Amino acid sequence: MMMSYLFQGWNCRGPAKYRDMLLDIGTEEMAHVEMLATMIARLLESSPVEAQEDAAKNSAVRAVLGGTNLNDVLLAGINPQHAIVTGGGAAPNDSVGFPWNARYTIASGNLLADFRFNVTAESQGRLQVSRLYELTDDRGVRDMLAFMLARDTMHQNQWLAAIEELEQDGLGGTPVPATFPLDRELRAVAHQYWNCSESTASSAGRWAEGPAPDGEGTFEYLAHPTPLGPEPELGTVDPRLHGTPPVPIPATTK
Amino acid sequence: MMMSYLFQGWNCRGPAKYRDMLLDIGTEEMAHVEMLATMIARLLESSPVEAQEDAAKNSAVRAVLGGTNLNDVLLAGINPQHAIVTGGGAAPNDSVGFPWNARYTIASGNLLADFRFNVTAESQGRLQVSRLYELTDDRGVRDMLAFMLARDTMHQNQWLAAIEELEQDGLGGTPVPATFPLDRELRAVAHQYWNCSESTASSAGRWAEGPAPDGEGTFEYLAHPTPLGPEPELGTVDPRLHGTPPVPIPATTK
Amino acid sequence: MMMSYLFQGWNCRGPAKYRDMLLDIGTEEMAHVEMLATMIARLLESSPVEAQEDAAKNSAVRAVLGGTNLNDVLLAGINPQHAIVTGGGAAPNDSVGFPWNARYTIASGNLLADFRFNVTAESQGRLQVSRLYELTDDRGVRDMLAFMLARDTMHQNQWLAAIEELEQDGLGGTPVPATFPLDRELRAVAHQYWNCSESTASSAGRWAEGPAPDGEGTFEYLAHPTPLGPEPELGTVDPRLHGTPPVPIPATTK
Amino acid sequence: MMMSYLFQGWNCRGPAKYRDMLLDIGTEEMAHVEMLATMIARLLESSPVEAQEDAAKNSAVRAVLGGTNLNDVLLAGINPQHAIVTGGGAAPNDSVGFPWNARYTIASGNLLADFRFNVTAESQGRLQVSRLYELTDDRGVRDMLAFMLARDTMHQNQWLAAIEELEQDGLGGTPVPATFPLDRELRAVAHQYWNCSESTASSAGRWAEGPAPDGEGTFEYLAHPTPLGPEPELGTVDPRLHGTPPVPIPATTK
Amino acid sequence: MMMSYLFQGWNCRGPAKYRDMLLDIGTEEMAHVEMLATMIARLLESSPVEAQEDAAKNSAVRAVLGGTNLNDVLLAGINPQHAIVTGGGAAPNDSVGFPWNARYTIASGNLLADFRFNVTAESQGRLQVSRLYELTDDRGVRDMLAFMLARDTMHQNQWLAAIEELEQDGLGGTPVPATFPLDRELRAVAHQYWNCSESTASSAGRWAEGPAPDGEGTFEYLAHPTPLGPEPELGTVDPRLHGTPPVPIPATTK
Amino acid sequence: MMMSYLFQGWNCRGPAKYRDMLLDIGTEEMAHVEMLATMIARLLESSPVEAQEDAAKNSAVRAVLGGTNLNDVLLAGINPQHAIVTGGGAAPNDSVGFPWNARYTIASGNLLADFRFNVTAESQGRLQVSRLYELTDDRGVRDMLAFMLARDTMHQNQWLAAIEELEQDGLGGTPVPATFPLDRELRAVAHQYWNCSESTASSAGRWAEGPAPDGEGTFEYLAHPTPLGPEPELGTVDPRLHGTPPVPIPATTK
Repeated sequence: MMMSYLFQGWNCRGPAKYRDMLLDIGTEEMAHVEMLATMIARLLESSPVEAQEDAAKNSAVRAVLGGTNLNDVLLAGINPQHAIVTGGGAAPNDSVGFPWNARYTIASGNLLADFRFNVTAESQGRLQVSRLYELTDDRGVRDMLAFMLARDTMHQNQWLAAIEELEQDGLGGTPVPATFPLDRELRAVAHQYWNCSESTASSAGRWAEGPAPDGEGTFEYLAHPTPLGPEPELGTVDPRLHGTPPVPIPATTK
Repeated sequence: MMMSYLFQGWNCRGPAKYRDMLLDIGTEEMAHVEMLATMIARLLESSPVEAQEDAAKNSAVRAVLGGTNLNDVLLAGINPQHAIVTGGGAAPNDSVGFPWNARYTIASGNLLADFRFNVTAESQGRLQVSRLYELTDDRGVRDMLAFMLARDTMHQNQWLAAIEELEQDGLGGTPVPATFPLDRELRAVAHQYWNCSESTASSAGRWAEGPAPDGEGTFEYLAHPTPLGPEPELGTVDPRLHGTPPVPIPATTK
Repeated sequence: MMMSYLFQGWNCRGPAKYRDMLLDIGTEEMAHVEMLATMIARLLESSPVEAQEDAAKNSAVRAVLGGTNLNDVLLAGINPQHAIVTGGGAAPNDSVGFPWNARYTIASGNLLADFRFNVTAESQGRLQVSRLYELTDDRGVRDMLAFMLARDTMHQNQWLAAIEELEQDGLGGTPVPATFPLDRELRAVAHQYWNCSESTASSAGRWAEGPAPDGEGTFEYLAHPTPLGPEPELGTVDPRLHGTPPVPIPATTK
Repeated sequence: MMMSYLFQGWNCRGPAKYRDMLLDIGTEEMAHVEMLATMIARLLESSPVEAQEDAAKNSAVRAVLGGTNLNDVLLAGINPQHAIVTGGGAAPNDSVGFPWNARYTIASGNLLADFRFNVTAESQGRLQVSRLYELTDDRGVRDMLAFMLARDTMHQNQWLAAIEELEQDGLGGTPVPATFPLDRELRAVAHQYWNCSESTASSAGRWAEGPAPDGEGTFEYLAHPTPLGPEPELGTVDPRLHGTPPVPIPATTK
Repeated sequence: MMMSYLFQGWNCRGPAKYRDMLLDIGTEEMAHVEMLATMIARLLESSPVEAQEDAAKNSAVRAVLGGTNLNDVLLAGINPQHAIVTGGGAAPNDSVGFPWNARYTIASGNLLADFRFNVTAESQGRLQVSRLYELTDDRGVRDMLAFMLARDTMHQNQWLAAIEELEQDGLGGTPVPATFPLDRELRAVAHQYWNCSESTASSAGRWAEGPAPDGEGTFEYLAHPTPLGPEPELGTVDPRLHGTPPVPIPATTK
Repeated sequence: MMMSYLFQGWNCRGPAKYRDMLLDIGTEEMAHVEMLATMIARLLESSPVEAQEDAAKNSAVRAVLGGTNLNDVLLAGINPQHAIVTGGGAAPNDSVGFPWNARYTIASGNLLADFRFNVTAESQGRLQVSRLYELTDDRGVRDMLAFMLARDTMHQNQWLAAIEELEQDGLGGTPVPATFPLDRELRAVAHQYWNCSESTASSAGRWAEGPAPDGEGTFEYLAHPTPLGPEPELGTVDPRLHGTPPVPIPATTK
């Protein structure tokens, strides 16, 4: 999330309040990374061999957080490669690093599209932190996670508020991107629900009837949608690509 | 998106209408992949060498869509490896395939977290299709994209409606996950905006004051947030990891 | 495999029976994914804490299949990240999902080249399923795998039959691609076995003498192959690339 | 392919002739890498700015082979990053290096499964080299490729011969792995073709009737296959994972 | 580099001066990312269609830097996907972002090992920036790169100085890690140069004779190194893995 | 490392002694891969079920080395997927293979830049091998690692000697690349240390004062560096990209 927010901010061509807000929260995310890195580094110092009855449980938590120490490795057999590569430090690896690990950076230039991503990222993030919280009963780790859960609550609220603001400023709306002329799309199918299975349980939802959220139409439920055109047929392609043709090609005289 | 929707559906333990809806739209997405694959395969057949003045423009579009043919390759020098590997067919590669390319599959087991992802994916997707539309003036390609733009409009509406439904059914809410007890998080910081830059332009937004969208608190703007604790200090770690210690370690007698 | 077969089908320009067959089996593969996803989701529900003596064994199987639950995680310490990310559902991740995980999609446009890939994929797949079968003694899991083993048997047979058919239709042959004129390759080395080690144990095989499978020549065994040309020497390259030259470059006057 | 063959050889527990043969050809593949690396490095030296009319064509070839030089970069705009990173040398990158680029290493321990992979790799490889040959008319490059095409012909023959040998030695057979007892799979579906589409064009093929290649049964064509069991239903999962349940969970008293 | 330096700093257990220095330079690297992101965003604004004669050249530079605009895309056909995904902003993608793109993060816990990585990263980085400088003659871009070249000069100096300091502080030395007892390695081969080719041109170098840099021995040149042991032979492995054995396994009675 | 050294050698345009040396050591690295592959394959044969008290410890080592067998899998639950995919053989995978696993290939064309990478790779490599040595007490494994530690010692020495040689030959120097004219960089900032944190602990190091290692200037410590220019402002970008503008765009008349 750190990288997404910073790049969204650096690329932001909208009003200054958005740019500043993006950089504020991007900076805060960097602090979160430091906090987690420190927590992991400390956990690696303090796990005495004696406390073996708790070891399996603790090492599960540490494995998720990206840390392991020699004793845990020998005892629980988790991810010894991590100890060998990082020597008892945190690392931003995919297979290890988790809450601070934005899998990819989104910065599309369209703030509404990006803010929707941001509220998603904070939602998946808080869900994962809550699961991690349930997995451990270490007091110190839980205190740390309680802080992160609260900040993720703030950030979900923050992005939802930013989406409201953007819409009130006339800078975004459904469907994204709102600046693309609607009459260029095939309006006839813009509010149709297509049932593509034998079950019609899907007809019971809000998405099957009534006004659509974009205020531009009414949902219509097609229980038996039909193809809009015939089955396609492919033609021939350059023989120099040596693909398989419909009928054998006579031998070239070379 | 195809894979995300199908996996969300197969893993769905919520009411049947959600599972059915997820599988309906997942199936439709599969049809979109087929349509695009066919469009690409056809484009590769019909680009005569004579039409060279349009080639650069067309080949840009085709390159995005994942197709190239020999003439385009020689003329515009784009991605000849694609022609060599696929021989004039569509491919679901990352570097090539674009609108149907969900970069990763999200299926968290929490429907609100996942529906937020879905509305994001449809937003980024429709934004990208609209940009592609602007890049081409090929009549056939634009017709195809007009269809996809409309379906993305429907799908944005559909996921927004599904989020409403989920909240009305009492199966989700902000902050995600709503089932995690709020008193376990550090409530004191759950609605604070932290200004982490010199500029305070960010104080002008909806996220800086007033009731938060979750209905559980009021935004508070901290222009000068202060650390919640002291600077951390790391201790020592197992010497068998051969990290750098604070002071030299005396030579082992081996 | 699902993705490879579908893309091969959508891109197929050969006779209709091949396209239809590719789409049939691609569709069946999609059902396999659903079956496995369901099996995993169910396994996650039914592992009571009491059954701890079997837990290590079961969790090994589940870890391979992509599932873990809280108790297994705490007990066996396997992959807690999976539980945290998917919340008890299946996922198509590389590191987790296994039998249905085609590592990459092959659709070259040449059916013989692709069918050879397909028979390979089904062979590696059935081998992996048979190993998984040996790893577990859970009745339900074994029943499921017995089904998959049989379908992989069918699919190996199917692709071998399709290769026969293709050759009888005159649409493919060894060497692939058969449409490339043989006299353009360096025929002198097209059937020579080159021994590149001190041992000559390799001279005992079918590949060292007798007619070659392509019917175009006879194998020849070279116990001491010699270079076809002199040791190459590289020349100079643009100095603006700042590579290391053979002799120092005099200081530029700038 | 180099890596696959070497690892298959180093891990080989079968008769010595196979191990020796695998290491012979793995070593030869390494020489191919050197030859290509040298060809690229030389191409980068010799493209005078004057020969601009051929530049687009040549640079297409070079881009595929992994090389570019400053003039080509400026003229054709292909992959300038390559020049910047490698400074006029070959590189084994995925996005660049092509004929010698085995995307992943296969060494399963089962020689028949692996030899099938090897014949596939040589088929896809020769197909790609033949397409590259068509893309260029540079005399020197074509001579080089003519050599590689012939060796790929040999290698396809070699792996097909090795498969014959393996079967004659009683060390492999269809279905792979032949050592897994057939009565453990669900024999009832081991030779059934399932038609999974509306079209029945697939009934015309060799895979729809007659004896199966494994000699263990006869193909059977099911035009309307039916489910082997009922629609699955998922149960409940640990609430500490915070997934979405079928009905709202009452508020925890925390 | 930003990520490597920050993680090395956060994980640092050595003297405070190293930790502080690592965080200083990690922070500076973050500013470099912002500068480059801004430069790219600006370049995308200012390329008038009229200036077409320079377009190919400019677009090459922009493509490397991660930027493209519509006109460049249409004209030079480079990477239109970038425009579509980022909409005219910078992105930290691998295929695009270049000088600020540390491909992976190194933080091993051993400062000397990591400082050697850092001096390498700054060397490869400055080499790449210098090549980029040669590729463009845009005044503004060159000014920006002149700044970056100077900072990379400083950073190469800085890491070399830090290596000196570390050795003087007794916290590191050759061979890394210096804390591992030398008598545990096979000292007999610790200073031998093994000639593994027919040429002995390698005997002319500093590495072939004289005192080794670690001060612990003298280089010895073996023109004809011999194996230290016999050719290995593999034994048997668990038959339940269904690998290929040396001789056929009799049919299981199942 | 094998791939990096071989590619550096094949691309080498410097004096013959460097090319020959690179190929010698690249060849040796290939032998290391074979040795490790063999060690792993043997370990997989010899772990009797009875020796269960040592199993957790041994399996940790084997997991790092890339091997596991059925008993270890069932007992310790580590990485069963490896057994299933490779069937008891070594594999060059990232997640498994470790000491011989060069994560990426570096061959920049500039020997000093590359030799600095090589000494880094041997340092990280020996650090990792030493940690692995500490993790096991298997006699045979330790003997093997003792050999590798010694060769890594040699190779660190070898690359440091090669760097000396290169500088004495006038073919390289700090800053890399030495052939780029220094007056083209912004000399004013080429030796300044910028303190970017509140702490000034970094002023105590060798990098903060005195002559710089490149012999071209003196370090200067700026405790409070100031921006070299004003805060940047972005302008407008093509509206057809549908990014978010500073003020709402009036509806297009379409």
